[in-house]
Amino acid sequence: MPSSAPRRPTILDVARHAGVSPTTVSHALNERGYVDPQTRERVKASAQALGYRPNMRAQRLRTGEAQTIALLSSMPFEVAGGASRLGFLMEIAAVAAASALTRGLALILVPPMQGNQLPLERLDIDGAIVIEPTDDDLNVAHLQSRRLPVVSIGRQPADDPVPYVDLQSAATTQLLLSHLWAQGARRIALLIGAQRRNSYVEADLAYRAFCEAHGMSPRISMADEAGGEQAGHDRCAELLRQYPDIDGLYVTVDAFAVGALQAIAEHGLRVPDDIKLVTRYDGLRARTSTPALTAVNLHLDAVASLGVQLLFEHLGGDTHLRHMTPPAPELVARASSAKTRKRSPAR
Amino acid sequence: MPSSAPRRPTILDVARHAGVSPTTVSHALNERGYVDPQTRERVKASAQALGYRPNMRAQRLRTGEAQTIALLSSMPFEVAGGASRLGFLMEIAAVAAASALTRGLALILVPPMQGNQLPLERLDIDGAIVIEPTDDDLNVAHLQSRRLPVVSIGRQPADDPVPYVDLQSAATTQLLLSHLWAQGARRIALLIGAQRRNSYVEADLAYRAFCEAHGMSPRISMADEAGGEQAGHDRCAELLRQYPDIDGLYVTVDAFAVGALQAIAEHGLRVPDDIKLVTRYDGLRARTSTPALTAVNLHLDAVASLGVQLLFEHLGGDTHLRHMTPPAPELVARASSAKTRKRSPAR
Repeated sequence: MPSSAPRRPTILDVARHAGVSPTTVSHALNERGYVDPQTRERVKASAQALGYRPNMRAQRLRTGEAQTIALLSSMPFEVAGGASRLGFLMEIAAVAAASALTRGLALILVPPMQGNQLPLERLDIDGAIVIEPTDDDLNVAHLQSRRLPVVSIGRQPADDPVPYVDLQSAATTQLLLSHLWAQGARRIALLIGAQRRNSYVEADLAYRAFCEAHGMSPRISMADEAGGEQAGHDRCAELLRQYPDIDGLYVTVDAFAVGALQAIAEHGLRVPDDIKLVTRYDGLRARTSTPALTAVNLHLDAVASLGVQLLFEHLGGDTHLRHMTPPAPELVARASSAKTRKRSPAR
Repeated sequence: MPSSAPRRPTILDVARHAGVSPTTVSHALNERGYVDPQTRERVKASAQALGYRPNMRAQRLRTGEAQTIALLSSMPFEVAGGASRLGFLMEIAAVAAASALTRGLALILVPPMQGNQLPLERLDIDGAIVIEPTDDDLNVAHLQSRRLPVVSIGRQPADDPVPYVDLQSAATTQLLLSHLWAQGARRIALLIGAQRRNSYVEADLAYRAFCEAHGMSPRISMADEAGGEQAGHDRCAELLRQYPDIDGLYVTVDAFAVGALQAIAEHGLRVPDDIKLVTRYDGLRARTSTPALTAVNLHLDAVASLGVQLLFEHLGGDTHLRHMTPPAPELVARASSAKTRKRSPAR
C-alpha cells in the first residue's frame, strides 16, 4: 500500500473545518436534531470540500448488513466487453457472486466500460477483486488509496503484488506448447498482449524456455489490447510475413485469436492443416470459431471461489494469506490443433 | 404493492420501544456521543427486536454515493445456474451493470443459488430488477414488502404486474412456429416449463392460436424447471411416444432443448431430418449443441438497458412508465431446423 495514500477524511476533520462539534456535524448531515440553518450549510460545505462521506461500512458491520465487494476487470472494453462479455469476467462473476452471498457479501459488478471511465470513487464498497491487473493498474491504486482490501485474480506483475489467485500462466503456456509440439508443430510463434499483465509476462518467459529446450527460435509478437480482434489480425498477418514457415501459434487472448484465424485464411493458409492455433480462455469465442479452438480449462469456478475466499480473509483482518492456487490448467483439445497427415514434422 | 406490506421500522419506532429519544437511539447505534451503557444495550435490543436498520439509502442520496440496485433471476439454479451460467442472466448482467454505472447506480449481482436461498433481506439496496418472475415470485414479494422499487424483465403473469420490459414471448413463438412451418414441419409440438412464467403462458397461447390457424392439433408438454436438462429429456421422450408423428418441436428453455436433443437421438430419430427443433435463447447451449440450434435474438443488450432505465425512472419517483418494449425478436436460423429433402410435407 503506498504510504502517500491520502487519508479518508473523518467527521473530526469536518468538525474542525467547520468550527463545530462532531455531534453537530452528525446532526447537520443526517438532518436529525436541531441545527441552525446557517451552521448546517457551513457543515455541508465543509463536508463537500473535504470529500467527507459517512462511514457506511462501519455501519454495515454494526447492523449486520451484507458487506459489499466489487468485481472489476482491468481489461479494456475492446477485449473484455462487447462481443465477449459472456466471457472471462462474467464466468468469474457468476460464481463469485454466489460464493460471496453465501459469506454475507454482496457483489457489485463493474464491467469494462467504453473509455474505461470507472466511477469507482462513488462506490461505497468494503473491498474489491480485480481481474488480471497490470503493474500500474489505476483501479488497484485507487482502491489502495482508499485503504480498501484488494485481491486480484491473476498475479499483479509488481514487486509487491496485492494478494492473488494464481492463474498459472506459465503452466498454461507449457501445456499448450507441449500440445502443439505433440501435434507435430515445430516452428511455433507466440502472440501476446502488449500491456504489462502477468499472463503475458509468464507466457513470454515460459515460451522462451520452451524454445530453448526444443532448439526452436523465438517468434513473438505483441498486440495492443485496445485494438481487439483487429489488432490480433494485424499482428498475426505481420508474423506470417516475417516468419512464413510458422506451423503453430499460441495466441493468449481469445479476441486476438479470432483475428488471427482470419489473417491466416487471408494468407491462403488453413487451420489446422498449415498452422495449428491454440488460445487460453475456453469461452464462447474458442467454442464457436470455425474451426473450434483448442483452449485451456482454467477452472474458473475454483478461481472465482478462491478469489472471494481470499478477499473474505482480508476483510476479516487476516492478511497473512498472500496467494491461492486453483487446480492445474487442463487442455481442451479441439479441431484447430488436430493432427494432420498433410505435413510431416520438419525434423 | 400489497397493502399488507409491513412498514419498515423507523428510528421513532425504536425510540418508542426503548423508551428513549430518537437522538439517543442515533447516538447509541452509531456509538457517538455519551449514552449510558445500559441504555445503549436496551436500544440495541429494541433495534434488533424490531428489525430496524438505519436508512443508508437516504444517506447515499445526501452524500452522492452511488445508489445500489440488485439484479436477480427467479429461474432455479438447475436452469439458470451451473452449466448455463454464461447465459441469459449474465448476458443481461453485463450490459445492465455498465448501463447502471453510467447512471450512478451500482449493480449487485444475485445469481440463482442452490436451494434458492437468497439472503435478500441482508442487502441494503435501493431497488431491483427481477428476471422473468412468476406470478407468486417470492423475491418480488419480499422487495415489495420493503417498499423498494422493482421492475422485471419479462412481464409478471399477474393482474397487477410490476413495471416490466416486454420479452415479447408471443411474437417469439409466432416467429419460431412460422419458421418451422416454412421449413416443412406440419406436426409441431411445444415443450414449455411447468411454472407460471409469462414466457410460457404467452408461448402456450400463441402456439394454440397457431394450431388453430393452421389446422394443426396441439401437442403440448410441460417440464419442471428444477429438473433441468433431464426434465427436458424425459418430457420430450414422452411426447415422442404419445405423438410418434411429430416433425417439429419448439422447446422454450434451452436447458430442456439439450435434453430433448438427446431424447430424439435415443428414439432413433435425427435432427433436423426427422424432427426440426428450435429454442428461444441464443446462448452457449444453442450455439454449441450438435446440431446447432435455431434460436431467437431477443436483443438482450436493449432489454438490459431498458430494464435499468425503467428502474431508474422509478427510483427517481416517476412511476408512470409501466412497461418498455425492445426491438422485435429476430430469427437466428441454424442447422437444427434446416430444410431437408428426405421427407416431403405431410400435406
